[in-house]
Amino acid sequence: MAVYTRVSAEEIGQFLGRFNVGTLVSAKGIAEGVENSNYLLETTQGKYILTLYEKRVDPADLPFFIALLDHLAAHGCLVPPMIADREGQKIQKLCGRSACLIMFLPGVSVSHPTEAQARSTGQALGDMHEALANFDRERRNILDHDGWRALADQCGTAELGKIAPGLAQVIAGELDHLDEHWPHELPRSAIHADLFPDNVLMLGDQVTGLIDFYFSCTDIRAYDLAVTHAAWCFSEDGTAFQAPISRALIGGYASAFTLSNAERGALSVLARGAALRFLLTRAYDWINTPAGALVTRKDPQAFLHRLQYYQKNPDIFTS
Amino acid sequence: MAVYTRVSAEEIGQFLGRFNVGTLVSAKGIAEGVENSNYLLETTQGKYILTLYEKRVDPADLPFFIALLDHLAAHGCLVPPMIADREGQKIQKLCGRSACLIMFLPGVSVSHPTEAQARSTGQALGDMHEALANFDRERRNILDHDGWRALADQCGTAELGKIAPGLAQVIAGELDHLDEHWPHELPRSAIHADLFPDNVLMLGDQVTGLIDFYFSCTDIRAYDLAVTHAAWCFSEDGTAFQAPISRALIGGYASAFTLSNAERGALSVLARGAALRFLLTRAYDWINTPAGALVTRKDPQAFLHRLQYYQKNPDIFTS
Repeated sequence: MAVYTRVSAEEIGQFLGRFNVGTLVSAKGIAEGVENSNYLLETTQGKYILTLYEKRVDPADLPFFIALLDHLAAHGCLVPPMIADREGQKIQKLCGRSACLIMFLPGVSVSHPTEAQARSTGQALGDMHEALANFDRERRNILDHDGWRALADQCGTAELGKIAPGLAQVIAGELDHLDEHWPHELPRSAIHADLFPDNVLMLGDQVTGLIDFYFSCTDIRAYDLAVTHAAWCFSEDGTAFQAPISRALIGGYASAFTLSNAERGALSVLARGAALRFLLTRAYDWINTPAGALVTRKDPQAFLHRLQYYQKNPDIFTS
Repeated sequence: MAVYTRVSAEEIGQFLGRFNVGTLVSAKGIAEGVENSNYLLETTQGKYILTLYEKRVDPADLPFFIALLDHLAAHGCLVPPMIADREGQKIQKLCGRSACLIMFLPGVSVSHPTEAQARSTGQALGDMHEALANFDRERRNILDHDGWRALADQCGTAELGKIAPGLAQVIAGELDHLDEHWPHELPRSAIHADLFPDNVLMLGDQVTGLIDFYFSCTDIRAYDLAVTHAAWCFSEDGTAFQAPISRALIGGYASAFTLSNAERGALSVLARGAALRFLLTRAYDWINTPAGALVTRKDPQAFLHRLQYYQKNPDIFTS
């Protein structure tokens, strides 16, 4: 959430010369998305996002992301595709990084979604899944169910215990439960896999853009709804479940795309998996980020609370 | 150069309700200026900067900055004034901070100024000084000549020596020289006091805005030109003086506003003072910022090199 690579105005001006997008009028480094460097550019023709890919995004994955966004845009989904230069190239080099010029979308990310906003988001997610039904490229989810046990091992029992007493045991028990109940047979698809409110742009109650597809991958499709549920339906600290938001999100999704009985029935275990995934990655980052570092560490316990809520309330998706 | 206070879209939307500026369309946290939190906002009516003042800006100074910017804007200078709400208020409260909504200006900050850009900047500085000739509010320069010795003492001989061997002695000698030669009798005025290329917006060779007035204060007017000279006329590391840029900057200034013989004759000592001021503040920040912290420490030696150049070449401003 910072600018890691400083790009001079002269370098940005030269870079834009590769495209048919007008000349540079303004360039501001912005705090946005996963750990990339992002600039909001205004040219004589419009607004754009310039992204330089830092360590979290593997340049080898960019063709998948580009194909996914092009596919979604071609199917009318509000996503920000990468822009091709005069020679048709979308993946560029800038300051030694892979870089893309990306369409700017209006809208803001809400912090306290209303029911109407949750419903719109569910619909947008359903519309996205519908558009992706005939998208055939694949990308492995490196943070999928198979990877969670290794991530827990990397955190270590002692360090997890410092976050919350007995946390390693809670995680080990949950991993066993998920191994036993994970719904491997459900339909798979390309998914967003990180549709937090941060990654949904809105104007009023209307979704104006789904952004930040850098965790998108191939996985159980209903897992995407479960991730979105874990991200949207609790207070930020995870202690207060928001039933009306939950109903609106799932209702919005089901109004736009099929949610089969098998999928609905599996949402509880999928949501437990989603909560565990963010608990584990936040715990890993917590353990590996020095307390004095000037980056905000996100509290893993916010997702421990969600996990515990899902464990105790298996019927919220079917009742 | 980061966002310190997170303001939600809902809070920004509510905040904008105090003003006649339309409704929120987009909000991005930006890396800009001194250590404030800045958001680039787009509304249905235009673009604005939202600034929340963090520790480096004393809210008690805001009325001076607002009066200065209003005065400059009223005299046709390209500066970004604060915007009044429906009740005429410019200083707001947001998330527990003092905050202002500020006019957005187009343009980019260049990293490698050309002669034409240096000339335009000199002209803009001269135009600004002309407009300020009848501005009568005062603000003490807390980083003025009187304060440098105390700053050097706070750094300490041992810590300065770690930055460069003998640095404390170089600074002590320079402080003595400046005490003896500081041109207290020269005309005083409100000055910008920090006109680095970062704080000048340009489109092509034209200045489109002078920004970031949070060091502005009352001091010797020609000292402002000396600060700008130290900021613009060297390679970033301070080892290479750029004579054509120097001539263009001073020529541009003199074409727009009077530079008396007394002022021109004092530029050498003023520039030594300017180089020392940034050497000292950078040394202080260097010593007091942990090496592991994720903020970029600016190298104090870049201004030691400038100081040494000015010491060895007293005639560059008059020959």
